[in-house]
Amino acid sequence: MRKLPFDKAKLEEIASKWPTPFHIYDAKAIRENAKRLNKAFAWNKGFREYFAVKAAPNPHLMKLLKDFNFGSDCSSMAELELAAKVGNTGEAIMFTSNDTPADEFRRAWELGAIINFDDTTHWEAFVDAVHPEGFDGRVFCCRYNPGPLKGGNAIIGKPEEAKYGMTRAQLFECYAKMKAAGVTRFGLHAMVASNELDPEYIIDTAKMLFDLVVAVSSELGIAFEFVNIGGGIGIPYRPDQQAMDIFKVGEGIEKAYNDTIAAAGLNPLKLFMECGRCITGPYGYLVSRVLHIKNTYRLYAGLDACMSNLMRPALYGAYHEIVVPGKEDSGETSVYDVTGSLCENNDKFAIQRMLPVLAPGDLVVICDAGAHGHAMGFQYNGKLRSAELLLESDGSVREIRRAETLDDYFATLDFSPFVD
Amino acid sequence: MRKLPFDKAKLEEIASKWPTPFHIYDAKAIRENAKRLNKAFAWNKGFREYFAVKAAPNPHLMKLLKDFNFGSDCSSMAELELAAKVGNTGEAIMFTSNDTPADEFRRAWELGAIINFDDTTHWEAFVDAVHPEGFDGRVFCCRYNPGPLKGGNAIIGKPEEAKYGMTRAQLFECYAKMKAAGVTRFGLHAMVASNELDPEYIIDTAKMLFDLVVAVSSELGIAFEFVNIGGGIGIPYRPDQQAMDIFKVGEGIEKAYNDTIAAAGLNPLKLFMECGRCITGPYGYLVSRVLHIKNTYRLYAGLDACMSNLMRPALYGAYHEIVVPGKEDSGETSVYDVTGSLCENNDKFAIQRMLPVLAPGDLVVICDAGAHGHAMGFQYNGKLRSAELLLESDGSVREIRRAETLDDYFATLDFSPFVD
Repeated sequence: MRKLPFDKAKLEEIASKWPTPFHIYDAKAIRENAKRLNKAFAWNKGFREYFAVKAAPNPHLMKLLKDFNFGSDCSSMAELELAAKVGNTGEAIMFTSNDTPADEFRRAWELGAIINFDDTTHWEAFVDAVHPEGFDGRVFCCRYNPGPLKGGNAIIGKPEEAKYGMTRAQLFECYAKMKAAGVTRFGLHAMVASNELDPEYIIDTAKMLFDLVVAVSSELGIAFEFVNIGGGIGIPYRPDQQAMDIFKVGEGIEKAYNDTIAAAGLNPLKLFMECGRCITGPYGYLVSRVLHIKNTYRLYAGLDACMSNLMRPALYGAYHEIVVPGKEDSGETSVYDVTGSLCENNDKFAIQRMLPVLAPGDLVVICDAGAHGHAMGFQYNGKLRSAELLLESDGSVREIRRAETLDDYFATLDFSPFVD
Repeated sequence: MRKLPFDKAKLEEIASKWPTPFHIYDAKAIRENAKRLNKAFAWNKGFREYFAVKAAPNPHLMKLLKDFNFGSDCSSMAELELAAKVGNTGEAIMFTSNDTPADEFRRAWELGAIINFDDTTHWEAFVDAVHPEGFDGRVFCCRYNPGPLKGGNAIIGKPEEAKYGMTRAQLFECYAKMKAAGVTRFGLHAMVASNELDPEYIIDTAKMLFDLVVAVSSELGIAFEFVNIGGGIGIPYRPDQQAMDIFKVGEGIEKAYNDTIAAAGLNPLKLFMECGRCITGPYGYLVSRVLHIKNTYRLYAGLDACMSNLMRPALYGAYHEIVVPGKEDSGETSVYDVTGSLCENNDKFAIQRMLPVLAPGDLVVICDAGAHGHAMGFQYNGKLRSAELLLESDGSVREIRRAETLDDYFATLDFSPFVD
C-alpha cells in the first residue's frame, strides 16, 4: 500500500476549501527527488536536468525545480513562455521541438534558448525564420535517431518508426553545415525511451551518444559542450514494479563517460537530461470523491473525477494505484470498475480492481498523477479541468492553478447571435 | 477521392483571413443531412433527433440543427448550458448522463430537460438533489443495458462490460419506483453501439427496446411516450466503407414498430435518436498546411495541425482521408507519415499513406473531422486549439469559434509570484 503525504483528516480539510477533484503535489518529495538526481550525477561538473515542461506545465512546479538548477525542456510556444515567466531563459531552456513553426524558432532564439534541431533541413528553416547576424556565443544541438541500430522500448516504439531526429549520416551533414556557417558551440541529443524502468537502457543511450561525440568530433573537428541523453526514466506505476535506481544510472553513465569521452581526451563534456515523469510523477495525486456505487453486471464506483483529469488509464490502459484514505486497513474489499462521468465507456480509472468497500462520499486518491496527468486533460463532453494544489513542507497548501469554470469553457465562443 | 465543398483557391482565400489550422463545417451539407434523417423517420409522428452535443459542442452548429427540430443530447453541465444558450430547453434537452453529480440533476430539472437515469439508485440521488414538490407533466427515462443478451460492437465493447445503464430487472424496479412516486410520463433508452455501419444493428436495438416497452407496459401498467434508440450510426471513414443507408434503417425500424408497438396497441410511441457522428462528422474538415518535409527512415510530412486538433488517429488509430487541394489529379505520389508537432510519437494523422508529392506550404484537408474532432482537443504540450469556421450555402465563411491564444492557455494560472 502506497504511503501518502496526507491522511484522511488532512484531505477532508483541504477538500473543504478546494472541492474535489483536484491534483495535489508534494513539494517536499519533489525537492528531495531533485536533490537525489543532482547527487547521482554530481560526478559531472556541468550536469543539468531540463525538466520536461510537457509533463507538468505549472510555473510553480517549474520554479520549485529551478531552485535545484533545473532548466526547462520546451517544445512549443506556450512552454517557451512558461519557462520565461519563471526566469528560465538563455541556456536554461532546451528547445527540443519537431515539425517546428517559424515563430517558435524566432522566440526560442530571442530567449537565448539552446536550439535542438530535429532534422537537418531545420537548420535552413531556422536561418530563414531568424535571419541571425551571427551565431556568436550560441550553442546548437542535433537530435539523433539511431533507427534500427537501437531497439526501441515499449512506449516510444521502434526508433526507425519514430518521427524524431536525424539519421547518422544526416547528423554529420548537419554539424558540417553549422560549422561552415560559423557555429562553434555544439551539443548532441537523443531520446529513445519513454517510461523505461531498466537502467541499462538509459546507460546504453548515453554510451551510444558518447561514441557518436567521439566520432563526430574527430571527423568534423568540432568540440562538443554537452550531451543530452533525453528523459524516458519510468516510474513504478504497478505495485510489482521497482523504481529505477538513479544512482546506478549515474554510476553506469560515469563509467561509460570515462571509457569513451575521457579516454578520447574530450573531457569535460556536460551531461544533460530532460526527464519529466520521474521528477514529479510519483509526487502528484488526483484526489476525488465517490459519487455513486452502481451494481449492474459489475460493481462500479463512480467518481467526481473523470478522464479529463487523468487520461492515462483510458488512453493507454495504464495502471494507477488507488488508495482510500481511512480505509487502508479495512478488511472488507470488493472488486470495482472505478469510473468517471465522461460519456465514453473507456472513462475508467481502474478495471476490476480490488479495493476497500466504497461508499458515496469516500475520498479516493489516484497515485502517480504528477506527470502527464493534469497536463493531458481535455474538455471533451464539456468537462472542466480541476485545480492544482501544492502541499508545502510545513503542511500548508497553496493553490497553484485554479479550477476551470464554465466561463473558461465558453471563452472562445461568441453567444451574441443567440441573445434575444 | 473525396469531393470537397471548396477548391484550393477558395481555401487559400479563407486561410488568408484565418491562418491554418482550422476546422471548417459545410452548412449546406449538414442541413441536407438533417433533412434526410427527418425524412427517413417521417413515418413516426413524434420523431426527434437529439444531437449529441459532445460530438461538436458548438452553439452555431446546434442552432443550425435546431432549425430541423433537433434537440440536444447533453451529459454535463457545460452541455446543458450550451443547449440553453441556443434556446433548447424543456423537452428539447435529453439529459443522458452517467455518474451524475447532484448539481447537474438540479440544472437539468430546472431547464425542464427529459432526465434519463443511468442507474436505479439515481432516482433517489435525483430526488435528494432536487427535492421536487411533484412530477406533474415531467417525463422520465431509464437507460437499459442488455448485458450479455446483446452482443456489443467493436467500439463500445460488450454491453456487460459497459458502465452504462440498468439490467432488465433494475429497469422494472426503477419504473415501479417512479410510478409509485407519482410519475406518469415515461421513456426508455439504450445506446449499445458506436460508429456502427451495419443498419441491422440499429434496427435490432430498436426491436429490443420495442419488445421491452411492451413487457414493461403490460407488467407495470404504465404508458410509454417515447423510445430513444441512442446514436451509434457510423460514417465511412475509409474509402472502402459505405455510409449506412438511413432510409433502410428508417424502414426497418418502422416494420419493427408495426410488428410490436402497433400490434400491442401501444401506438403512438415517439421515436428519438441521439446521433452525433453521422450528423456533422462527414461535413467537417481540418485544414492544415505542410510545414516541413523530412526524410529519415521514412518520409514525413509535418503539418501545422497536431493531435490537439484531431485526436482520433493518435487515440484510436483511426483512418481519416486526406486530400491535397490542387494536387488531387497529380500523378506523382509518395508514401508519407503525416505528423503533427506534438512531442508525442503517436501524433500522426496518417501512417504510410500514399499521397500526392507534398511540399512545404501545401494545404492539406483532413476529412471527416466534423464530429469528435475539435471537441476532443487537448492542450497537452502547450498546444492551442484552433478556430472553427462555417461555410455557408452562399459560399461565405463565418467564424463560429475563435482560435485559442496564449492568454487562454494561461487563464487558470497566477503569475504574480514571478513578477519582479
